[in-house]
Amino acid sequence: MGIPREEYEQRQEAVRRRAADAGLAAVLCVSGPFYARPGDVAYLTGHFPPFPTAESETKLRGTGHAAVVLDGRRCALVVDTPAYREDLVVASEVVVASDVWAEAARLLQGTAGPVGCVGSDVLPWEGARALEEAGVRLVAADPVVRELRRVKSPAEVELLRGACGCAREALLACAGACLLGTTEVEVAAQGAAAGLRAGADFVRYVRVHSGPWSAWPTRWPPATGRVLQKSDLVLLDAVGACGGYAFDVGRTTLVGFDVLPWQRELFDAVLRALASCLRAVRPGAPVAQVVHAALRAFEDRGLGPHASRFLGHGIGLETVEGPLLVPDSSEVLREGMVLCVEPAVYLPERGGVCVEEVVVVVPDGWEILTSQIPRRLWE
Amino acid sequence: MGIPREEYEQRQEAVRRRAADAGLAAVLCVSGPFYARPGDVAYLTGHFPPFPTAESETKLRGTGHAAVVLDGRRCALVVDTPAYREDLVVASEVVVASDVWAEAARLLQGTAGPVGCVGSDVLPWEGARALEEAGVRLVAADPVVRELRRVKSPAEVELLRGACGCAREALLACAGACLLGTTEVEVAAQGAAAGLRAGADFVRYVRVHSGPWSAWPTRWPPATGRVLQKSDLVLLDAVGACGGYAFDVGRTTLVGFDVLPWQRELFDAVLRALASCLRAVRPGAPVAQVVHAALRAFEDRGLGPHASRFLGHGIGLETVEGPLLVPDSSEVLREGMVLCVEPAVYLPERGGVCVEEVVVVVPDGWEILTSQIPRRLWE
Repeated sequence: MGIPREEYEQRQEAVRRRAADAGLAAVLCVSGPFYARPGDVAYLTGHFPPFPTAESETKLRGTGHAAVVLDGRRCALVVDTPAYREDLVVASEVVVASDVWAEAARLLQGTAGPVGCVGSDVLPWEGARALEEAGVRLVAADPVVRELRRVKSPAEVELLRGACGCAREALLACAGACLLGTTEVEVAAQGAAAGLRAGADFVRYVRVHSGPWSAWPTRWPPATGRVLQKSDLVLLDAVGACGGYAFDVGRTTLVGFDVLPWQRELFDAVLRALASCLRAVRPGAPVAQVVHAALRAFEDRGLGPHASRFLGHGIGLETVEGPLLVPDSSEVLREGMVLCVEPAVYLPERGGVCVEEVVVVVPDGWEILTSQIPRRLWE
Repeated sequence: MGIPREEYEQRQEAVRRRAADAGLAAVLCVSGPFYARPGDVAYLTGHFPPFPTAESETKLRGTGHAAVVLDGRRCALVVDTPAYREDLVVASEVVVASDVWAEAARLLQGTAGPVGCVGSDVLPWEGARALEEAGVRLVAADPVVRELRRVKSPAEVELLRGACGCAREALLACAGACLLGTTEVEVAAQGAAAGLRAGADFVRYVRVHSGPWSAWPTRWPPATGRVLQKSDLVLLDAVGACGGYAFDVGRTTLVGFDVLPWQRELFDAVLRALASCLRAVRPGAPVAQVVHAALRAFEDRGLGPHASRFLGHGIGLETVEGPLLVPDSSEVLREGMVLCVEPAVYLPERGGVCVEEVVVVVPDGWEILTSQIPRRLWE
């Protein structure tokens, strides 16, 4: 399993063509470590920076990052450590550098024309300054790679399916641990261990938001020492990666077996919203239409004001990729896009329900990659 | 436990003074999410961005980041979500924004003079461009906050001690799991679960590099499906945070109880190097001297060519902070610095040994915060 070498070469070639079409003399692609924004470099070369990003010092800059310099004749990878996976990386050359930005500037020296920067939301300002001071003429060019990344190949879909398998194990373990008197932290520990055992590269976190905290879509820290109470809603979100591809799957469960009427109302509304927006998913469908289908389902039940207007996002080599599923999106779904669809309703101080599925857009609609994970985990 | 409110206010006041001394009209401080580079904003306000960084879209930029605008009259925090911990954050105002960079620019509008950027190695290029286009005159000013962060207060040292307690549980669990026939992944799963159970905010990863992989100081992925063999060296590294403060503790263990002669030689050399460099640790000692003390110990045993020349780093709100313990450092140790000291020797294709301790610089030398973690975990 994995991405075949030829697929990397095809990706490099596609970027080369797109860069030429955009009038770029070269592309500089910049990524972060394996647990945060590794996508563009991993997409082109299979490299995942293994070390954390670190405070810069005079002779060590760009630690935890990697860069790709791609032009008509080469796809050169700049890494911050000799401990890169030579057996997995596809590049015309690999350079180990203590200053990633200086090395990228050196490789780009003398480039006649603008250099398209992919990762303008990742490249640190100090890196951009170092490059510009070295005479590199950077222009933002994220779509040159990001548009390609939005549509997943069959090999990528299989990797994402495998990643969802890790999330399944994590969430089932969490659900089994959601017992009266347990702490959020204990639930998270069992979930993380199960995800890793299932082969995850890492589990960045498992969110366990119980009771009133279930009304929080996100929170620091992801799990606390709070003790689970009878009839608590427990919002679970397993986030990590397997084989380089991310998982981000959410469920809401219950302490005990008795769903209170107001909780059932939230569950029903969320599942109805999910069904409504999935019905709208197909190649060519505007993202806004999909989002509004879900929001209308909440409004029909009088829950509009409490429904999340963030309906989800793309997923792939990173947890949160485009397209974002937001009401004012101007994007259109394409075959092969993989989306986290996460309708949610949050009643402040009381509790919330979110169900997050991973869905691939197929010719006649959609396929759910997370269908093996029950939606009513307490049953 | 935690950092008292007054300490945050003192930090803000100290930055205000330093900014004025540096001729800055204001400071813009930028950080990443809780699991990657949260340090500067967390130091000033106690805020840890809870959401992942994400690909930018037109109306959502800077997601997963946070910014602080600090000047003579205010310490304003810009967050990307209403789900921030109001109960934990110390700021004169908090603004929730869908575009963190646009909001920071708005707050800085009309600032008469240069704005010092803290986090020039974190602020994405697109953020810097948005700020500059809005008329903000940014200058790199990382030391204004980073120098303060290098010296830990007594409250910070206690939090780091607590974090080391999580690492202890993680490493002891890993050591217990390093049995013939187990996989690296299973060892990592048990370690991560134990660290979370001990109260970690998150365990970013537990490295488990077995057999020949123990000669790799870093690797993607941190644990693989490799099955442990008799007499394998197993390099373990537990990395995460507790109460916002990071842990990064390393040990090397063994499958079985019989240390082979060449392995004993590596262990002895590493422990000798550790003792040598710790003897050099005290306020006022040049970092280079500490590093060379360790390297000389390796050279004396003929292991110089295989010794890591990266001897460690500061630790605090981030895993890897300054000072970096590298041979050409021009820095000097100060009382209250907390360091990861990690002498290591790696024999390619055979195996390596690394022992990583967390050490606080005290008036008469050092105190080890990780002394409760045995160095010979297999015994």
